[in-house]
Amino acid sequence: MSYEKLDTHNLKLAGLDHALAILGADEATSMPVGGGDQRAQAMATLSGMRHELASAPHVADWIDAAQNEDLDEDQELGLLEFKRQYLHLTCLSPDFVERRTHISMRCEQLWRELRPEGDWKGFAPALGEVVALAREEAQLRSEASGLAPYDAMMEQYDPGNRTADINPVFSKLKTSLAELLPQVLAAQEKRLADRPLKPLNGPYPIKVQRELGLALMKAVGFDFTHGRLDESHHPFCGGVPTDVRMTTRYTTKDFLPGLMGVLHETGHAQYEQGLPRKNAHWPHNSARGMGMHESQSLFVEMQLARSPQFWRWAMELVSKHLGKEVFDGWDVEDILAHVNLVKRGLIRVDADEVTYPMHVILRYEMEQDLISEKLKVGDIPEVWNEKMNQYLSLSTKDNLADGPMQDVHWPAGLFGYFPSYTLGAMMAAQQWAAMKKDLPKIESEIEKGDFSALNQWRKDKIWEKGARASTPELMLSITGEALNPEYFIAHLRTRYLTPAISD
Amino acid sequence: MSYEKLDTHNLKLAGLDHALAILGADEATSMPVGGGDQRAQAMATLSGMRHELASAPHVADWIDAAQNEDLDEDQELGLLEFKRQYLHLTCLSPDFVERRTHISMRCEQLWRELRPEGDWKGFAPALGEVVALAREEAQLRSEASGLAPYDAMMEQYDPGNRTADINPVFSKLKTSLAELLPQVLAAQEKRLADRPLKPLNGPYPIKVQRELGLALMKAVGFDFTHGRLDESHHPFCGGVPTDVRMTTRYTTKDFLPGLMGVLHETGHAQYEQGLPRKNAHWPHNSARGMGMHESQSLFVEMQLARSPQFWRWAMELVSKHLGKEVFDGWDVEDILAHVNLVKRGLIRVDADEVTYPMHVILRYEMEQDLISEKLKVGDIPEVWNEKMNQYLSLSTKDNLADGPMQDVHWPAGLFGYFPSYTLGAMMAAQQWAAMKKDLPKIESEIEKGDFSALNQWRKDKIWEKGARASTPELMLSITGEALNPEYFIAHLRTRYLTPAISD
Repeated sequence: MSYEKLDTHNLKLAGLDHALAILGADEATSMPVGGGDQRAQAMATLSGMRHELASAPHVADWIDAAQNEDLDEDQELGLLEFKRQYLHLTCLSPDFVERRTHISMRCEQLWRELRPEGDWKGFAPALGEVVALAREEAQLRSEASGLAPYDAMMEQYDPGNRTADINPVFSKLKTSLAELLPQVLAAQEKRLADRPLKPLNGPYPIKVQRELGLALMKAVGFDFTHGRLDESHHPFCGGVPTDVRMTTRYTTKDFLPGLMGVLHETGHAQYEQGLPRKNAHWPHNSARGMGMHESQSLFVEMQLARSPQFWRWAMELVSKHLGKEVFDGWDVEDILAHVNLVKRGLIRVDADEVTYPMHVILRYEMEQDLISEKLKVGDIPEVWNEKMNQYLSLSTKDNLADGPMQDVHWPAGLFGYFPSYTLGAMMAAQQWAAMKKDLPKIESEIEKGDFSALNQWRKDKIWEKGARASTPELMLSITGEALNPEYFIAHLRTRYLTPAISD
Repeated sequence: MSYEKLDTHNLKLAGLDHALAILGADEATSMPVGGGDQRAQAMATLSGMRHELASAPHVADWIDAAQNEDLDEDQELGLLEFKRQYLHLTCLSPDFVERRTHISMRCEQLWRELRPEGDWKGFAPALGEVVALAREEAQLRSEASGLAPYDAMMEQYDPGNRTADINPVFSKLKTSLAELLPQVLAAQEKRLADRPLKPLNGPYPIKVQRELGLALMKAVGFDFTHGRLDESHHPFCGGVPTDVRMTTRYTTKDFLPGLMGVLHETGHAQYEQGLPRKNAHWPHNSARGMGMHESQSLFVEMQLARSPQFWRWAMELVSKHLGKEVFDGWDVEDILAHVNLVKRGLIRVDADEVTYPMHVILRYEMEQDLISEKLKVGDIPEVWNEKMNQYLSLSTKDNLADGPMQDVHWPAGLFGYFPSYTLGAMMAAQQWAAMKKDLPKIESEIEKGDFSALNQWRKDKIWEKGARASTPELMLSITGEALNPEYFIAHLRTRYLTPAISD
């Protein structure tokens, strides 16, 4: 039976993916420095073997034959998602993939080298080559899928996402944020004038911060029989669903960055840990996509772990680990003032939840124009600066390092990825609203540190669904309606414009 | 060119081996308990892919064609060793390999279950199946290689080792040990009567023991840019040459077991780290075999790290980490009395260097008789007991757990492996003697903690040679003569029968 051949084929792909995931996590957390060259060689070889195996022409025959075999519903769903991925993988020729790998790797290396000085002139030609290839890729993907070029690029990260649906959502969000942001900043200024920010009394030893992080992960619902926490330069959530490798990074000056990083990655980790275990080697049992994944990390980090309910419970646990003096004379408003501080800034990854979408919308708009050739690479700095002025009243003139040279995505050839961050933030807010409707007592449970109902809801509605539906279909099934920016906007209003936070 | 096809082929095999090595080390040191099933699945899949790739029939055509291509000397050596390994891999049919895997895995599981109670009756039938398969395997290997059946089994672990050469060596060793052991025990008794064993004043915190182990690894020559030390239930040396994963295990009662474990594995690790880096994916640049590998671990653990010269230097370093009081009032003889304590015992892995060879010779003799069908599985307990009586004056009657059920090797189907342990011990003694001739000042350098010349000698003579010569050829090139048990016997006489150890 061809289905069985595909089953063995998926086991092999899963074996290689398992190896690549653990090797990648090990590289970032454990590998001695001299192991890098051979590790890169081994991982490149395994990736090449994976691509060769996954895109082999006889797989198409197996798919065709399996479609006429007697399959149950789950097998059919698996075959459907497998076919979708196979088409995505094979619409680029091996020659094109090799060319893209070389050009984007060279551009990424150049980016690492030239970013510190913001040397745009040295960087732009290499980026130009990457953009030219991305245009070619979008065209190839478009022809294969029947989608518009930029939609075909997004389809890789969030199946079902279309600019036609996202444009009005982002447009509404942009208008609302332009109106909200000055109000939020004014309200914050007033609050801080009445009640100045209390200083955090570090240093906080890393060992103690780690213990605190572990305690919060455990409380929030991370399963330590299927995962662990390590340290790395860039926090990530990797590994495999039965062995999730999560990292954070600490600074002794402040415990909040490490802790919020832990909570963000815990959200990702729970999604992986909660995926269907049966036939885990078939792709319909993987996570849906980048936007949905980000919704799970932001559900924990933003919706849960920056809320007054959460901190009413968490302050005691934090004090237990860091010492009573850490919150001496504080109430919940004092810690919320720290975790929900809003500030305009140039750097996307440092942005708070109010300003973050502006960074994404800027990139989303520019990406579309780059792919459609409306925007030339040489004009990026000027357009970036204009948009930063318009959206966040900031200038990146003569500061390219903190402007269009700040992200790895474009040098790496990842176009169509950025919108997922903000789509995830909006999804999380909408999921939170749906959950509150389904679980009317949830806020009082959170205040007691009881996250069991909250996690069960996520498991039933999201994690266990794997990749059985497209991103918009899944959102509809979770919340009963299509993605609607009003939930996120309402969330920001409640959190940042309601005068009294404590009760 | 076929050579280039083989080059790519070896890169793929090396990529899979790299993944399997790191996944295996990670499993033993870092993996959460719930990750085991999927890890086993992934590793089995990758092993299967490796076997399928390595034994593919078209590889034989590439080998044939490459032999007629214009290759340089190094390429020819690589091709030669590659061909040897290919023949070893393909002389068993895929069907046979699968059967062997299932039967030995079942027997190994049964062994783990039944060993604690020493339930030989429950265990023997499964072992019988493994032995029957081992006989079949030895026959198949013999036909393919033209070697005698047991030689063909040993050839897997130490190419070039033949019973015709080893039998007289082991026979000489057995006679000498039978004579030496009572003298060693009597001399030790007298020494301990004059100077009783000073107690070690633990507990020693694991963190401190780890720091001490790291300091000694560094001093002895472990390269921390290409490896690391972790903890695991069974100490091992794994990973890849550019990223060696070494482990030990600690007990707080005594620091010596953990420390000597570290030093033993450091010897293995240095061999890996010192292998040729160029074309590391070709098999002639791997370590030669198990016996040579064991010679490197025992060179460090037995020859170096249990010598008076070493401890004249090391006592201060140990005190620095564990505290002055650890050796308060001790001199070098007191610590040597601990590290060189000789005691007859039933368990091979707990044996000292004087009694250890007896355990190996017992197994070596029995293995040959099992493969040649002179010995039946049902008679193992009786013969084992007789030999233990004869060689070490101990009985295993009614104690099968500490008799023929103590090792994993036979249940796992590893016949022909045991001799490597004692061959390694003899090789190490012979290498040490050759080194002392080449480096007349080495003992005074060791007393200063300077191991640079010693390591350079090992690198030049052993590590850099990879697997370019057979085990006996390599010994000849290192020491100028064939394996000669007199060096090991002389080493034991000097260490255990010379009255005054200190100067």
